[in-house]
Amino acid sequence: MMNKVVIEYYNGKEKALDDIYANKAQVLLEALPYIKQYFNEIVVVKLGGAIMEDYKSLMKVLDDLILMKYVGIKVIAVHGGGKQITKLMEEKNIKVEFCDGMRVTNNEAIDIVKMVLLGEINSKIVSLLNKHGKIAVGISGNDANFVICRKKTYKKDGKEIDLGYVGEIVDINKDFLLKILNSDYLPVIATLGSDSKGNIYNVNADTFACDIASKFSAKKMVLLTDVDGIKVTEKTKEKLVSRISAKGCNELIKNKDISKGMIPKVNACISALKNGVERAHILNGNSEHSILIEIFTDKGIGTMIVDDN
Amino acid sequence: MMNKVVIEYYNGKEKALDDIYANKAQVLLEALPYIKQYFNEIVVVKLGGAIMEDYKSLMKVLDDLILMKYVGIKVIAVHGGGKQITKLMEEKNIKVEFCDGMRVTNNEAIDIVKMVLLGEINSKIVSLLNKHGKIAVGISGNDANFVICRKKTYKKDGKEIDLGYVGEIVDINKDFLLKILNSDYLPVIATLGSDSKGNIYNVNADTFACDIASKFSAKKMVLLTDVDGIKVTEKTKEKLVSRISAKGCNELIKNKDISKGMIPKVNACISALKNGVERAHILNGNSEHSILIEIFTDKGIGTMIVDDN
Amino acid sequence: MMNKVVIEYYNGKEKALDDIYANKAQVLLEALPYIKQYFNEIVVVKLGGAIMEDYKSLMKVLDDLILMKYVGIKVIAVHGGGKQITKLMEEKNIKVEFCDGMRVTNNEAIDIVKMVLLGEINSKIVSLLNKHGKIAVGISGNDANFVICRKKTYKKDGKEIDLGYVGEIVDINKDFLLKILNSDYLPVIATLGSDSKGNIYNVNADTFACDIASKFSAKKMVLLTDVDGIKVTEKTKEKLVSRISAKGCNELIKNKDISKGMIPKVNACISALKNGVERAHILNGNSEHSILIEIFTDKGIGTMIVDDN
Amino acid sequence: MMNKVVIEYYNGKEKALDDIYANKAQVLLEALPYIKQYFNEIVVVKLGGAIMEDYKSLMKVLDDLILMKYVGIKVIAVHGGGKQITKLMEEKNIKVEFCDGMRVTNNEAIDIVKMVLLGEINSKIVSLLNKHGKIAVGISGNDANFVICRKKTYKKDGKEIDLGYVGEIVDINKDFLLKILNSDYLPVIATLGSDSKGNIYNVNADTFACDIASKFSAKKMVLLTDVDGIKVTEKTKEKLVSRISAKGCNELIKNKDISKGMIPKVNACISALKNGVERAHILNGNSEHSILIEIFTDKGIGTMIVDDN
Amino acid sequence: MMNKVVIEYYNGKEKALDDIYANKAQVLLEALPYIKQYFNEIVVVKLGGAIMEDYKSLMKVLDDLILMKYVGIKVIAVHGGGKQITKLMEEKNIKVEFCDGMRVTNNEAIDIVKMVLLGEINSKIVSLLNKHGKIAVGISGNDANFVICRKKTYKKDGKEIDLGYVGEIVDINKDFLLKILNSDYLPVIATLGSDSKGNIYNVNADTFACDIASKFSAKKMVLLTDVDGIKVTEKTKEKLVSRISAKGCNELIKNKDISKGMIPKVNACISALKNGVERAHILNGNSEHSILIEIFTDKGIGTMIVDDN
Amino acid sequence: MMNKVVIEYYNGKEKALDDIYANKAQVLLEALPYIKQYFNEIVVVKLGGAIMEDYKSLMKVLDDLILMKYVGIKVIAVHGGGKQITKLMEEKNIKVEFCDGMRVTNNEAIDIVKMVLLGEINSKIVSLLNKHGKIAVGISGNDANFVICRKKTYKKDGKEIDLGYVGEIVDINKDFLLKILNSDYLPVIATLGSDSKGNIYNVNADTFACDIASKFSAKKMVLLTDVDGIKVTEKTKEKLVSRISAKGCNELIKNKDISKGMIPKVNACISALKNGVERAHILNGNSEHSILIEIFTDKGIGTMIVDDN
Repeated sequence: MMNKVVIEYYNGKEKALDDIYANKAQVLLEALPYIKQYFNEIVVVKLGGAIMEDYKSLMKVLDDLILMKYVGIKVIAVHGGGKQITKLMEEKNIKVEFCDGMRVTNNEAIDIVKMVLLGEINSKIVSLLNKHGKIAVGISGNDANFVICRKKTYKKDGKEIDLGYVGEIVDINKDFLLKILNSDYLPVIATLGSDSKGNIYNVNADTFACDIASKFSAKKMVLLTDVDGIKVTEKTKEKLVSRISAKGCNELIKNKDISKGMIPKVNACISALKNGVERAHILNGNSEHSILIEIFTDKGIGTMIVDDN
Repeated sequence: MMNKVVIEYYNGKEKALDDIYANKAQVLLEALPYIKQYFNEIVVVKLGGAIMEDYKSLMKVLDDLILMKYVGIKVIAVHGGGKQITKLMEEKNIKVEFCDGMRVTNNEAIDIVKMVLLGEINSKIVSLLNKHGKIAVGISGNDANFVICRKKTYKKDGKEIDLGYVGEIVDINKDFLLKILNSDYLPVIATLGSDSKGNIYNVNADTFACDIASKFSAKKMVLLTDVDGIKVTEKTKEKLVSRISAKGCNELIKNKDISKGMIPKVNACISALKNGVERAHILNGNSEHSILIEIFTDKGIGTMIVDDN
Repeated sequence: MMNKVVIEYYNGKEKALDDIYANKAQVLLEALPYIKQYFNEIVVVKLGGAIMEDYKSLMKVLDDLILMKYVGIKVIAVHGGGKQITKLMEEKNIKVEFCDGMRVTNNEAIDIVKMVLLGEINSKIVSLLNKHGKIAVGISGNDANFVICRKKTYKKDGKEIDLGYVGEIVDINKDFLLKILNSDYLPVIATLGSDSKGNIYNVNADTFACDIASKFSAKKMVLLTDVDGIKVTEKTKEKLVSRISAKGCNELIKNKDISKGMIPKVNACISALKNGVERAHILNGNSEHSILIEIFTDKGIGTMIVDDN
Repeated sequence: MMNKVVIEYYNGKEKALDDIYANKAQVLLEALPYIKQYFNEIVVVKLGGAIMEDYKSLMKVLDDLILMKYVGIKVIAVHGGGKQITKLMEEKNIKVEFCDGMRVTNNEAIDIVKMVLLGEINSKIVSLLNKHGKIAVGISGNDANFVICRKKTYKKDGKEIDLGYVGEIVDINKDFLLKILNSDYLPVIATLGSDSKGNIYNVNADTFACDIASKFSAKKMVLLTDVDGIKVTEKTKEKLVSRISAKGCNELIKNKDISKGMIPKVNACISALKNGVERAHILNGNSEHSILIEIFTDKGIGTMIVDDN
Repeated sequence: MMNKVVIEYYNGKEKALDDIYANKAQVLLEALPYIKQYFNEIVVVKLGGAIMEDYKSLMKVLDDLILMKYVGIKVIAVHGGGKQITKLMEEKNIKVEFCDGMRVTNNEAIDIVKMVLLGEINSKIVSLLNKHGKIAVGISGNDANFVICRKKTYKKDGKEIDLGYVGEIVDINKDFLLKILNSDYLPVIATLGSDSKGNIYNVNADTFACDIASKFSAKKMVLLTDVDGIKVTEKTKEKLVSRISAKGCNELIKNKDISKGMIPKVNACISALKNGVERAHILNGNSEHSILIEIFTDKGIGTMIVDDN
Repeated sequence: MMNKVVIEYYNGKEKALDDIYANKAQVLLEALPYIKQYFNEIVVVKLGGAIMEDYKSLMKVLDDLILMKYVGIKVIAVHGGGKQITKLMEEKNIKVEFCDGMRVTNNEAIDIVKMVLLGEINSKIVSLLNKHGKIAVGISGNDANFVICRKKTYKKDGKEIDLGYVGEIVDINKDFLLKILNSDYLPVIATLGSDSKGNIYNVNADTFACDIASKFSAKKMVLLTDVDGIKVTEKTKEKLVSRISAKGCNELIKNKDISKGMIPKVNACISALKNGVERAHILNGNSEHSILIEIFTDKGIGTMIVDDN
């Protein structure tokens, strides 16, 4: 008849397909209460170094962040890059040295840290996010001096250890980051900071995320790691703790149920809660869409740490 | 052990449940390209009178509008209320008279129109939306004189018919509505307008939606009705037209394939397309979540009318 | 001579006419101190139901409001519509029931209330004001959930009475109304409110005006009624009280000099004064231009209630 | 009875007084259409030197300007001060010289001009206006270089005459004055200007007012003088021309009906009309409230000059 | 070869010239720490009457102010004009009378004060600054009623002396001046003020500068005079005090080392320091570029008065 | 005497020292016309790779940029890092390959490019600038997708050469950079860009600077290199061309007077001029303060290329 009309048979047989689409719409609607809850709220997500190494996991995590941004959440991504730093140091034959889990960071090492964090990881995350449009802006903590640090002092067995350019955050300039957020960009922050003399420091990424979340009174802080959360062993059976109070965490630490690598993460969570962050989570970044499930469904996933009250 | 710790068995047996949640996250992500496409865009939705009568359908449609608002779409809802007006007129023993589908609207009738549109329907839609928060603002076309009308002139068989207070829109004050939209409220508009002498007119809701969509260069105009779209009969079989050009519509009208009640809807769509609206849709408001499916999935639903080019 | 020159005799004989115009200019100047005093100040005017019924009085009152707006006063109009509600209920054969002056408002009744307030009265006031330009915007207390209510609890003789959808205001969202005022529109507010479940309540108009005036620290609240103010009888002679303190009012109530219908009005005034409103007035809306005389001249009119100090 | 209640007899005998106040309210309302017409519009008023000398007239004119400001008119006052300049020059034994009505302004003279305009007249007008609050800001045309001039060239009998520091306006910086107006101050401008070398020039006040009115597309320009307007003599009878076109003016000039001193005023009016000013008026500043009568009543007063079309 | 190429010999012989330019660049860089220190800070400079009389000195001082403005300092200039006032009074045969250094200012005198300050000095400074562009705006303290005064009461030998229109500042309207500063203009302020009755007062320029500096928490207040600073005599040798505390000043005053004319200047400095101004200076305006040297180099010049702590 | 008073002898013997300071003030004032000329103007400075290697030169160049920022110039710094990239590639045993001066940039190479540009050079420049306060923000051309590229196509001897991730700029998003500039930060930009698929490209730094300068209509573009400018040899004598037109450049290129490495720089300058940049300069970054001398003194330094007209 007329060439531009497309006609489809209409006989009710497509019910099955219709149901699929109706279900999809239904899922979107089920997310609505969660969307409302997080609308215009700040969520800080720390991307653990392990995720960087698994391209497929990373892509999925970044998709999650973009969705969060589009439904109105002000997402701040924070990343470190320990494994990649070690790798490049080894390539360059620089001695890799740790002290109680903290990298001893001399002149040569801090140069490698900057190279890896800014030139490799930050740049990669920003590029991947920006495939979807004008979304992300890469930031170093020393841009506009927005993260002010001091050299971390550390004592072991009563003796002071020189960790080199390992920093503690002493102040955060909210204005700079707010300008980025209010311009509707998703900031991706490398965990560097500077002091007034222009020294650059590497900061532990969990602590960095905690300090940012605290300063901005984030609704939620999520530490994306490569484990499912806090686990305890009861009668030879390993169990995941899905919800625990700060006080409970301290008991588990005392009982040595919380193991070495998990301690700084748990402490960062407790500190964030004390500073006004509503909820802190330890999630497995390799579990598909763990953040989305945590935020947009009623399923508890990973470990949620809550204030004592 | 310690009373605030909640422990769940972690043995991998919850795979099935996990999958359900992962699927939900997946659906959200599938919607992402559509969310991006409509982010900050204006979509005008005309709620047909039939939907008002079916509380369950209405609730679902309103849920859809709220979701659209939360994922960044600037939704403008437009409603008439023909059936309810007729009902109240009959209750009050006022003569109900139509001419070619247009209600002859004398002094008594326009008072009933205002009562029903503002006092019954508009108020009801706003209340239902606002159960979800500070979402909607009810608006009449004569607030701030924002819809300027003139008396519609109508000729039948060469003779001028006096339709009374039936209006044609001659101008729309964009500023007022923009202030509402930019304050992040969802305007719910009753299809009234006024002239410079303060006369109030009733305007056909399809035309009203079309004029608003045109003035604001809406991305999409959706006419929610109680039929599935344009249908044609081929060899005794009724088929739904899922996609048709403006030119195609005109041929169908000429061939009388498009029936009486559908003609003004189709013409409103064609006029909107000519005035810069990207897509016009005729959907069945009683099909569950038809708008969401249309906007957030790749399924074509109802009839989409597109520009000739 | 030349055709476009209009020439008038100038012989000093028009002195009488000149004086009339000079007097007019003089009156404008006499109003100047009052204009300065109210410049940019908020004045809340409650339009009593009786005024709605007398078209001529209403028009004059609305002229007064427009003048106030143009000389820089931020006017907020509040209206109820008791008489019209009763009338429509009777027409629809719905039982009209009062308890101590408060309308028992069941499901059917609240629908009538909405119809009358929004569809009849609010719409009418807005149309009449907008004959003069883009002046007024009609608002319901449940637009943007800006007036939050709860069900009014009421006890009589120790027994709780169910008044139905009669509400008490628990909160007012200042932002929404400020946006309307700062966009230079005159808001006309119907005395409805909503609770978090989406129930709509009817609120006593005097109380509503008082709560709005209190929330916005209005300079003045005016209750336009159909009586001249508070009257007392001394030795068989009826006298108008032109100025009285809150304390004085309470004595008059105790002495039963202030009669039943006047009590809620006087109480609304006293409450507004306690909450920071500077002056409260009870005026007769049928006295020509009583508001203008009150605001722009040095004549006290009606009853002014002042703070005890 | 109770000490704080003030009671007035209420016996209807005060009708006469009531009528007076109702009349006052009525006058305010009669002004409303005019208030609406000039709301937010710019009106430039040139205060002639003669008014400065009559304190009572000046006070009344300034009251008029303040009222205009309060009812929403953006008033710009412009003043010269020829008589006062001559007076001070004579006091200081400086030779006073004119050429075709223009003051020959050498070094000594321009210093006197500045002293009188800024130090005497401008300061006096600002002080008198500011008795009523934070109303006026005194401005010289060379503040922020906002009026750029060049030396006026003048030929007489084919010979170039050196008028000294008499200037012609070549440009006006709108921004500076707009900032003053938008901060809600009434600018009082002395008719000085400067060139790029920092020379200060005196500008004819009628021309200055015309150029300001033209640059700002004023709604109205009013030249307040000490005569009632343009007068013509018909059969020995002197008549006032109340309304005349630009073309008509030119004929009257040709016929020498418009006399020497009036010519520059009329030309300034014609030039303003050509440049988009809607109406130009020549009024007698000594007639009580002539501006108010002109703007807020329907009485034509003085001479109104209108565009030819 | 080709006509548009300009070629210079390049043989290293221009070393001497190169050094000169490199030195200039070096000087700019040496100023950098000072530029940073004063960036966006307010500096109030009082121009003493003596500078007005020496055109060459004045020009240099104004160049200094312009440079300060361009490198980001918010400069406020304040000037009096005692000598010029006396001169004009004498010319006009008005009796010049002082009481303890304060001019007795009757009706005639205040008119002369306004003439000289606004019409002569303010206008001159503004013109000279504006040779360099849209830089300065002349302001009188009674513009927008921004400096509110009261009549100064003064007692001598227990008897009240009537000083006439000599004022004390009781309030300063920050908004008006901030609007000028934020529009990037350099305000030049004549030391007049007004009371609520519209009386104009002359204010001591040192006190005026002090009150402005205090109200705006200026970084620095500079009193430009015609002496080098506070001097003391030790063993017949006159010495300049380059730095002194407020307490030290008081001792010097007690010891009569600080002489009559210097006392009000020193007291203005002490008062400014008490009110939050960081540094107060007394400099010789006739020393070339004394302000620039004080602000942009490490050389102390004149006398700096500092807080006791 | 009193302990807080510091006293200096004042005997005129410090004349020599005084002169030094007066000279310094004089130099600041000599810079004033240049400061005015560049106030609020954009200047793009490309920092050549050679400067990065000489810490002392770099520090001086950065001091110059900071001074420029503080006196009101909107500086945009652009840097590449060719030598450092080659160095790291060699360290990592990656084959270094060039084609007509352009680096063939495969997958491995672009990773090195990002590492060096972002992780080493950009980070270093930002840190050094931020020693002076909250001054600089490091930016990659793919932040917010602000520099959109396409793969550069290149033909040699009629055959297309695959240069890998070498990009040509096709669009620049002005908004992002304007936000940085208007927040008063000095952007330091690494010469990367991205396409819509998320590929990252390396862009020639001279071209990058030219495109940024063109897009922002910069007042000036400066290419800081390690040569003094364009040189020609006349009769065995080498001469520096201090000023040349675009046309002249083209002749010199034709005559092979402009050598290989200089050609792209000269072409970038010519292109910038065509696109509205006022002046383009080639300066030696190792000559002390060459930018400051160029901008703030009347000495021409290096080569200035001007438009043909």
